[in-house]
Amino acid sequence: MLEFGDRVVVSGSERAQFLEFARVAARQAGEAILPCFRRPLEIDNKLGGAGFDPVTEGDRAAETTLRRLIQARYPAHGILGEEFGLKPGNGLTWVIDPIDGTRAFMSGMVHWGLLLGLFDGQEPIVGVMYQPFTRELWAGDGSHAWFQRGTDTPVAIRTRSTGSLDMATLGTTNPKLIPTTAGRAAYDQLEARVRLARYGGDCYVYAMVAMGFMDLGLDGGLQAYDVMGLIPIVKGAGGVFTNWAGGSACMGGDVLASGNAVLHQCALDVLKPGVQV
Amino acid sequence: MLEFGDRVVVSGSERAQFLEFARVAARQAGEAILPCFRRPLEIDNKLGGAGFDPVTEGDRAAETTLRRLIQARYPAHGILGEEFGLKPGNGLTWVIDPIDGTRAFMSGMVHWGLLLGLFDGQEPIVGVMYQPFTRELWAGDGSHAWFQRGTDTPVAIRTRSTGSLDMATLGTTNPKLIPTTAGRAAYDQLEARVRLARYGGDCYVYAMVAMGFMDLGLDGGLQAYDVMGLIPIVKGAGGVFTNWAGGSACMGGDVLASGNAVLHQCALDVLKPGVQV
Repeated sequence: MLEFGDRVVVSGSERAQFLEFARVAARQAGEAILPCFRRPLEIDNKLGGAGFDPVTEGDRAAETTLRRLIQARYPAHGILGEEFGLKPGNGLTWVIDPIDGTRAFMSGMVHWGLLLGLFDGQEPIVGVMYQPFTRELWAGDGSHAWFQRGTDTPVAIRTRSTGSLDMATLGTTNPKLIPTTAGRAAYDQLEARVRLARYGGDCYVYAMVAMGFMDLGLDGGLQAYDVMGLIPIVKGAGGVFTNWAGGSACMGGDVLASGNAVLHQCALDVLKPGVQV
Repeated sequence: MLEFGDRVVVSGSERAQFLEFARVAARQAGEAILPCFRRPLEIDNKLGGAGFDPVTEGDRAAETTLRRLIQARYPAHGILGEEFGLKPGNGLTWVIDPIDGTRAFMSGMVHWGLLLGLFDGQEPIVGVMYQPFTRELWAGDGSHAWFQRGTDTPVAIRTRSTGSLDMATLGTTNPKLIPTTAGRAAYDQLEARVRLARYGGDCYVYAMVAMGFMDLGLDGGLQAYDVMGLIPIVKGAGGVFTNWAGGSACMGGDVLASGNAVLHQCALDVLKPGVQV
């Protein structure tokens, strides 16, 4: 398991180099996924039949590609991936979700993506989301964020300033995935307060919060690799990304992303009865 | 309102011409939508504040384009569109949903598309779904169906043969949109029986049933324009598309699409207590 540790100090130019590496690596790994999309796949079941958690060849191909690229360029860095676990390193750790939204992927849908973040011991300092089918790439360093399609020039993205729940659009993958009864009840309270709730998003929800087309993104029971790549994008676009208690979201759990701090506090207040203690 | 009437007899070559026209027209109308996607939009609210039903400029631009193209090529045909109502015709009626999945569209998401079907008085005989952002086009004539991306050669698509609910993947936009309590309860029964349920699909769910990546597509409270373009695709790919009572789905309501007749009957049996009488 990845754990919090001393923060590794990184200069601005190093951070920029890490982000550029992440963009290039994510695109290259995405190419390894694409031949598997909408094709018959070899399905494993990690939970031994107790659940449905498909592991695709695309997942493994992409993570293998990323591990190879990271090892070649930054051999001292650690790597945590969904498929192949943790390789300890010097305090900087690349965190990989080769296909976030595996169930969407398996169903032929488009709302999935590759996530790659770099954790400095305290927080992810650069993050990338890439969807190879649509060739959409989001990137952020916690201060700025960009969107780029194909070979288009990257454009800066900003969150929206929606300041009240009754004007807000909320996205979540599926409320039933929130692990506790209290959490689902709190979610229902929040959904009742917002203007529009959309299901079925996975990583796209957070990309849309960063781009200012949604105001709130919420999921329950996440892992570190589900969020590390997304947090620097949302924060870089001007948003807020915490767990439901208002603390760090970078190890996953029940998380909330918002376009701005005012709306974030409104949503946290509603979610409070659902916080796991 | 569009009503059932005498079936207009159409030859095979006429049908093929209608389908080719529909492909070309859908692509051209899709281009009219694209400049509006992920841009600030002028939002109307059809329900006068009682609900949230955004009408976008993209919607209007696409429907206007389609009406102009149909009027020029087939001036005797009728036209029914979501935005501009019914123009009566000679018994053949083009049915337009310029953006199916308006809420997804407004949220910046990808699961939306333009739908165009041709109703012969009894059923839609050709149908097209086009997503201009991904350049994906699905087309069907009730006997065959094809998928095409961009300028790629169209490939024939087939539904999946999954024969039992416990192996099936189900897609729906949002169970809360099913209009009756009994309908939602019946849906919950069905969801409990399937292997995997995915939310947030709109027209993409039915495209994925046709392509064999989902087994069941279900929605409640639909309009004719929500389904006319999709039915010839699903049926053309080997699937079944009815309302929950097993009758014609082409006027909308609570609908079910399945990859095959065996699975369809299994699902209808579970949904039976939710049928509106």
